[in-house]
Amino acid sequence: MADIVDIGQSLEWIKRGSEELLTEPELIEKLKSGRPLRVKAGFDPTAPDLHLGHTVLINKLRHFQELGHHILFLIGDFTGMIGDPTGKNVTRPPLSREQILENAKTYQEQVFKILDPAKTEICFNSAWFETMGAAGMIKLAAQHTVARMLERDDFSNRYKNGQPIAIHEFLYPLCQGYDSVAMRADVELGGTDQKFNLLVGRELQKHYGQAPQVILTMPLLEGLDGVNKMSKSLGNYIGINESPQEIFGKTMSVSDELMWRYYELLSFRPTAEIAAFKREVGEGRNPRDVKVLLAQELVARFHSQTAAEEALADFEARFKQGMLPEDMPEYVLTSENGVPMNVVQALKQSGLTTSTSEAMRMIEQGAVRADNEKVSDKALLLPFDQPVVLQVGKRKFARVTISRLH
Amino acid sequence: MADIVDIGQSLEWIKRGSEELLTEPELIEKLKSGRPLRVKAGFDPTAPDLHLGHTVLINKLRHFQELGHHILFLIGDFTGMIGDPTGKNVTRPPLSREQILENAKTYQEQVFKILDPAKTEICFNSAWFETMGAAGMIKLAAQHTVARMLERDDFSNRYKNGQPIAIHEFLYPLCQGYDSVAMRADVELGGTDQKFNLLVGRELQKHYGQAPQVILTMPLLEGLDGVNKMSKSLGNYIGINESPQEIFGKTMSVSDELMWRYYELLSFRPTAEIAAFKREVGEGRNPRDVKVLLAQELVARFHSQTAAEEALADFEARFKQGMLPEDMPEYVLTSENGVPMNVVQALKQSGLTTSTSEAMRMIEQGAVRADNEKVSDKALLLPFDQPVVLQVGKRKFARVTISRLH
Repeated sequence: MADIVDIGQSLEWIKRGSEELLTEPELIEKLKSGRPLRVKAGFDPTAPDLHLGHTVLINKLRHFQELGHHILFLIGDFTGMIGDPTGKNVTRPPLSREQILENAKTYQEQVFKILDPAKTEICFNSAWFETMGAAGMIKLAAQHTVARMLERDDFSNRYKNGQPIAIHEFLYPLCQGYDSVAMRADVELGGTDQKFNLLVGRELQKHYGQAPQVILTMPLLEGLDGVNKMSKSLGNYIGINESPQEIFGKTMSVSDELMWRYYELLSFRPTAEIAAFKREVGEGRNPRDVKVLLAQELVARFHSQTAAEEALADFEARFKQGMLPEDMPEYVLTSENGVPMNVVQALKQSGLTTSTSEAMRMIEQGAVRADNEKVSDKALLLPFDQPVVLQVGKRKFARVTISRLH
Repeated sequence: MADIVDIGQSLEWIKRGSEELLTEPELIEKLKSGRPLRVKAGFDPTAPDLHLGHTVLINKLRHFQELGHHILFLIGDFTGMIGDPTGKNVTRPPLSREQILENAKTYQEQVFKILDPAKTEICFNSAWFETMGAAGMIKLAAQHTVARMLERDDFSNRYKNGQPIAIHEFLYPLCQGYDSVAMRADVELGGTDQKFNLLVGRELQKHYGQAPQVILTMPLLEGLDGVNKMSKSLGNYIGINESPQEIFGKTMSVSDELMWRYYELLSFRPTAEIAAFKREVGEGRNPRDVKVLLAQELVARFHSQTAAEEALADFEARFKQGMLPEDMPEYVLTSENGVPMNVVQALKQSGLTTSTSEAMRMIEQGAVRADNEKVSDKALLLPFDQPVVLQVGKRKFARVTISRLH
């Protein structure tokens, strides 16, 4: 029997970032048994190109793995090989066994950046469904009622709105539930949108004489915009196969608020450490410094520690020293009589300094840049008809174009 | 191409006694092709004990057979071997393959009393469902929507009333419909209660690129009571394996009105001949004589012509000459001083005659029977404590018991 203190710690770790645990007493009971739990998560074999949104759940699997449990990584190849049986959705053609295996390989390459291969069992549900037969499917369908299936939100809405629901759509949650029976799952993880299906698994396990699986739902990760769910089609994602530079840069682009959400769901840092970061930022630490740590952690996870350091150096070279705000004011300044304008005049006329003397003083202090190059010559002439970004200190920018009077 | 006149006659013969033909133009088109049509009817493998109610449909198959068409007698063994998959209905245990084959043999013995074995193909739907697989069942389920299935009366009512519908119940009509696809049925026959399922067959055939089957529904035969559907559980049936005497006697017991219904649905006599019977009865012919002809036809069908004649003779001997009303008055007559009572006294005391002289006159005329034996001896003594049926003429009866005074 596992140590009571351990169980408390395990529970805390398991619940971190999760949406719903059903039920906690059942999970405690299973943890108390001391045996490695069989923790299931199902994946669609048609989308092996993972982004951080997918990793929220995979991270949670890793937590279970770190606690000594057995991960059942289920690839739903059976339904993948059926494709869209209505034939209406041309974007879901049936996959061949070869494609499935190819996709599975791609999956593994990606998830093993997070999971320990030695403690992960990759399963294919064709293993049980191909021998089940039509009769087995009928028997499975007998385990649930039409009314209860119509309680699922999306079915309920479609039925009320007169939108067609093909009957096989009622079979898919049952198939997913039966996977739990076939795999003797102790725990199943899924997105919050999967709760209904996870519950079907619990019920079917009872029907088949098994203890019902504990279900743990994970929130859907917001994309880079902080509003929509991260998804490839919305373009607001960070793909785990993206380059270190992209992962780093995209992470740095999220808002400070979203950063904390990403910390909660994506970072493996201890909760206490993250709490400390929050406190520090509250006390004035630049949130960007904390964001850099997250960006580095993610690059290190999907590439390497070296790559993370390189990405930081690269990022700092490209952006930190010359970070341009997007909403920079723009000025078109007119030089009189076609005489070229020097940088001091431009600084004053664009309002970046209040006077020519301040402009000169800032140049002397080395605080002025033109197109990210430090300006040391107060007499520097700006070119005609060509925008130049002038910068004073860290926060004041203007895009200035000198126009020639005719 | 078949003769147009023939087609008209075929149509008339096919439609006789039927409830609904859908659609007639399609049937005409198929008949015009001149090829033997594939005419399907499905039977439940759990109830091989047929009664006349079942034969309404089998008779119609025979009509098609007489018109040169090919009969597909489908035994739904696939679902029979599943039994009740919810496990709730203990009266529907799964049947073994051996039981199915046994039942099929029993079926054949019965239906070949009506159908020509040489023109009948016995099919088992396990032939296609056992190789269909769970994936095939899912694809089949994709061909129909939940909303359309809920339009079926019984589903609709149960759903509205909150009575559970297990999801596999939605699959059974699809299986039945798929049978038509697998068998390439041109026509399917069924009871009126099967119309929805027969229509599913039409739709599935279209999905699978076949011309939709024509459906012909047959009415449900009323039982001997003339009110309820004939069924074994109600006891109002004539089983086709019953003895000639039972078939004959039960047929004779139906009302004159129900007789015409039975003529329409069970007799193979030409329509014109039945119309003539009707006219004759309208003009005063005893309906019992016509009923005898029907009873003989049925006995001849399920046994033999000889058996039919014997059954008639037996019936006449047992009933016609001594038909006993059920509501006969009963008398217990007391003999004084233990002296046995003679038949004349009993006739007068029971009120069958108004006087002893009338009693004696009736005996002289040969109009008196005791237990169906003609009485010629006016001094005949009746036994003590033993009921005797006394009859005067054709209509007056009494059950008389002579009690000894102590």
